[in-house]
Amino acid sequence: MRTKDDKKIAALHEATVKLVNEIGFASSSVSKIAKEAGVSPATIYVYYEKKEELLVSTYVEIKKDMSSKIMDGFDESLPIRDILRLVWFNMFKFASDNSDYIKYIDQFSNSPYSQLVNKEELDKFFQPIVNVWITGIEQKIIKNVNPEILGAFMYQPIIFLSNKNHCKNFELTDENIETAFTLAWDAIKL
Amino acid sequence: MRTKDDKKIAALHEATVKLVNEIGFASSSVSKIAKEAGVSPATIYVYYEKKEELLVSTYVEIKKDMSSKIMDGFDESLPIRDILRLVWFNMFKFASDNSDYIKYIDQFSNSPYSQLVNKEELDKFFQPIVNVWITGIEQKIIKNVNPEILGAFMYQPIIFLSNKNHCKNFELTDENIETAFTLAWDAIKL
Repeated sequence: MRTKDDKKIAALHEATVKLVNEIGFASSSVSKIAKEAGVSPATIYVYYEKKEELLVSTYVEIKKDMSSKIMDGFDESLPIRDILRLVWFNMFKFASDNSDYIKYIDQFSNSPYSQLVNKEELDKFFQPIVNVWITGIEQKIIKNVNPEILGAFMYQPIIFLSNKNHCKNFELTDENIETAFTLAWDAIKL
Repeated sequence: MRTKDDKKIAALHEATVKLVNEIGFASSSVSKIAKEAGVSPATIYVYYEKKEELLVSTYVEIKKDMSSKIMDGFDESLPIRDILRLVWFNMFKFASDNSDYIKYIDQFSNSPYSQLVNKEELDKFFQPIVNVWITGIEQKIIKNVNPEILGAFMYQPIIFLSNKNHCKNFELTDENIETAFTLAWDAIKL
């Protein structure tokens, strides 16, 4: 069960996403976020020393949520292609269902606040997927290239295609997601 | 030579990018944009009926500029792989040199204003590249998939990798850009 604190923190994160997406980082003051979350500004300072911390924490929480959702059904004993295909379909579902989160992390990544993130902590969430890539490289199934490059092909195209604003005249049916995965797999396989 | 009007419009576009990137769409009022551009608010209304038109025009102008820059040195007589490799390297250069434009188009694409864009007009700028894909499909060099999917692999990974905020521990040397292009080519080739 979630504690009272957990619920308040979740409400603060939701309020932060909503406000930042609507009016941007600069205008999203602590008092406006508090109002949106239905708590007093003093409450925010119980959990976060300053606004920056709340913004970073919201980002980290979304990435954590994303990592757990895209690894739903994750089974290391499956063939590498099957594991990555599952992650691909999960990422499509996550990005389609949570366009507000994707918008927030896009904006956050492009902001100076991204310098404040503990990158090592963040990387841990996605480590099981990176481990699959490494195993694939060792087994000469996956190209031996920098994980940043592998990530750029395994995540970016499907996140882009999931955005209805980008692809108006194109429906992402299961068949199209499968086709797109074929391209991603051909990109990274040896 | 650029006319006085051209210069004013260019100044308005630059001011729009700067302000929207700093304070978001909602807070970027016509009067603030005018001040940033060093013109009177009345001047803006000489060229644009309302703020929305200025935001859309700024977006379209960036995409037009992007399309011309990424097709720099474009030569239809070259092998398809060479043409697309050139576009890949040009896109890396454009995205690296113009992170402010990339940020603006990211935000714009995620905003309701993206509904106001004349998609047909926009597609025309990139048509020569789409024509290369179509030729490649006809010659059974490129996979016969929707252009939206091809675009997701030909543009998104390199735009992502060009962003220094995304890839801190990874330098995009010519060698790495070349490697990344190998993955993009393997993705789309038949």
